[in-house]
Amino acid sequence: MHAITIQEFGGPDALVWTEVPDPEPGPGEVIVDVRASAVNRADVLQRKGYYPPPPGASPYPGLECSGVISAIADDVPGWAVGQPVCALLAGGGYAERVAVPAGQLLPVPGGVDLVDAAALPEVACTVWSNVVRKARLAAGETLLVHGGGSGIGTFAIQLGSALGATVLVTARLAKHDRLRALGAAHPIDYREQDFAEEVRQVTGGRGADVILDIMGAAYLGRNVAALATDGRLMLIGLLGGRKAELDLGALLAKRATVAATTLRSLPPSQKAEIVEGVREQVWPLIAAGKVRPVVDRRLPMTDAAEAHRLVESNEHVGKVLLTVG
Amino acid sequence: MHAITIQEFGGPDALVWTEVPDPEPGPGEVIVDVRASAVNRADVLQRKGYYPPPPGASPYPGLECSGVISAIADDVPGWAVGQPVCALLAGGGYAERVAVPAGQLLPVPGGVDLVDAAALPEVACTVWSNVVRKARLAAGETLLVHGGGSGIGTFAIQLGSALGATVLVTARLAKHDRLRALGAAHPIDYREQDFAEEVRQVTGGRGADVILDIMGAAYLGRNVAALATDGRLMLIGLLGGRKAELDLGALLAKRATVAATTLRSLPPSQKAEIVEGVREQVWPLIAAGKVRPVVDRRLPMTDAAEAHRLVESNEHVGKVLLTVG
Repeated sequence: MHAITIQEFGGPDALVWTEVPDPEPGPGEVIVDVRASAVNRADVLQRKGYYPPPPGASPYPGLECSGVISAIADDVPGWAVGQPVCALLAGGGYAERVAVPAGQLLPVPGGVDLVDAAALPEVACTVWSNVVRKARLAAGETLLVHGGGSGIGTFAIQLGSALGATVLVTARLAKHDRLRALGAAHPIDYREQDFAEEVRQVTGGRGADVILDIMGAAYLGRNVAALATDGRLMLIGLLGGRKAELDLGALLAKRATVAATTLRSLPPSQKAEIVEGVREQVWPLIAAGKVRPVVDRRLPMTDAAEAHRLVESNEHVGKVLLTVG
Repeated sequence: MHAITIQEFGGPDALVWTEVPDPEPGPGEVIVDVRASAVNRADVLQRKGYYPPPPGASPYPGLECSGVISAIADDVPGWAVGQPVCALLAGGGYAERVAVPAGQLLPVPGGVDLVDAAALPEVACTVWSNVVRKARLAAGETLLVHGGGSGIGTFAIQLGSALGATVLVTARLAKHDRLRALGAAHPIDYREQDFAEEVRQVTGGRGADVILDIMGAAYLGRNVAALATDGRLMLIGLLGGRKAELDLGALLAKRATVAATTLRSLPPSQKAEIVEGVREQVWPLIAAGKVRPVVDRRLPMTDAAEAHRLVESNEHVGKVLLTVG
């Protein structure tokens, strides 16, 4: 088969469509013939050499895919050859075939095209596991989403709204109309406005109950300032650096929580729990049309370099998909 | 009645036994004739003027008491005049009588003396709500308790052990034998040893799954270093300052959580939920003799100044009680 390999760490042109050995299904695994994968920021970090795949994972990038099952290990019940699926991966989605632990497979939700289904696993698992499972966002609460135009952001807006929360987002001004259409109650232009001050004003001084953050250090102080009493700051990225001063007194006064998670590093058993929860709680919302995959564009997987340039430019809204065949 | 009033913020001698008006039971409240209260660090801060009582709370210090119910509002079911109880208070325990929201009452656990019962509410609610309810400490996990000789510390050692966790503590060397007798697997002399390094060694490099911390800024870096993957740092005090650098990259790599809480500031409905959980899950362990109140000594409430001096000297193990009558 072919896969996108990283010739040497660096710019987008390091990504080369290469002939590689086919994967074999290990115990508990299935082989998926990939129809599409999607670009995640972690793939860009991996390309640059900053985010090595976890032990045992495929060396190729790609944290999610859609496709059709072509082989199944003897010990895997409940799935059939020929079945269309999408999957959360520890790596290897940028390829014609990929081995997937069965616990990380999801059916293609009702009403969703097989290619578009590749836009769902990573964002659905990341947003649900942070915002619902860990932070327990409740109807009537306020969710602040940073990077509202990203794949994660566009999904979090829709899921938060579907659950009855008021969703505030930070994003470039040019994206605000599209994010409002997805359900964002109040987009904030992070280049012109102090988001902590905006959140306080919009919430009548209460603050945000849950914040989903990808910025890390650069936003830590303002995030704590923007939190409501009993607020939960969920950290999933460090685009703004890793070290910052934390005011524990402010945290204590608000009875607040700062929780950091990376989906990729979780052991397969924990990923399977999350996938199961997503299937039970999120897939019905997608089948009902309340949450949908947001796809900026599709590119052939052989153009992975171009897709990375696009994601790095930060001008997209939603996911950039890479299609095979 | 009489109560300890704070004449002006300052040293222990600010605490004066004074004649004050009797409390009246408001809706949903009972009056408890106090048999004993206990000294908490928050009382010392309140005496110094650093920790004002929350709105609506009694101006007198005292976050817990034991005693006998002497009056009940019409709308309170389930309690009777003459019943021995202990209670979690927002203030006012250093007095002959105190008004208590019924949701913050607990029966005196089986086998516990009425005076000693005053040592239980604050530590049981603080430790259970942090370590069990929020951090979900599981059997087989490792709990690190800072300030192992305090009331909170001695209770956390016993509760953690009773739940099947391995409990590590930091404490002065002179207290180690007594903390071992309570169930501490490995006391660490914080004045001579680097606790993060000790925790790593004792756990074979894994780290602590849950840390209960009263130090704040001074320990933040080492606490994050001492956490295991999926570890939870529960912050309940700031004895070592409030601002420190946080390495969000380390937090993310460990998928760790930092949660800060103060029991006193919780609304009565949330206090009642915690009291209910403590009654269901902790009281049976006390009745079974697996967890017991640890009392350093009893002093007459008129000697509150002496009791504060003792707690500030940090040479006690367990609770210092203040008795009435």
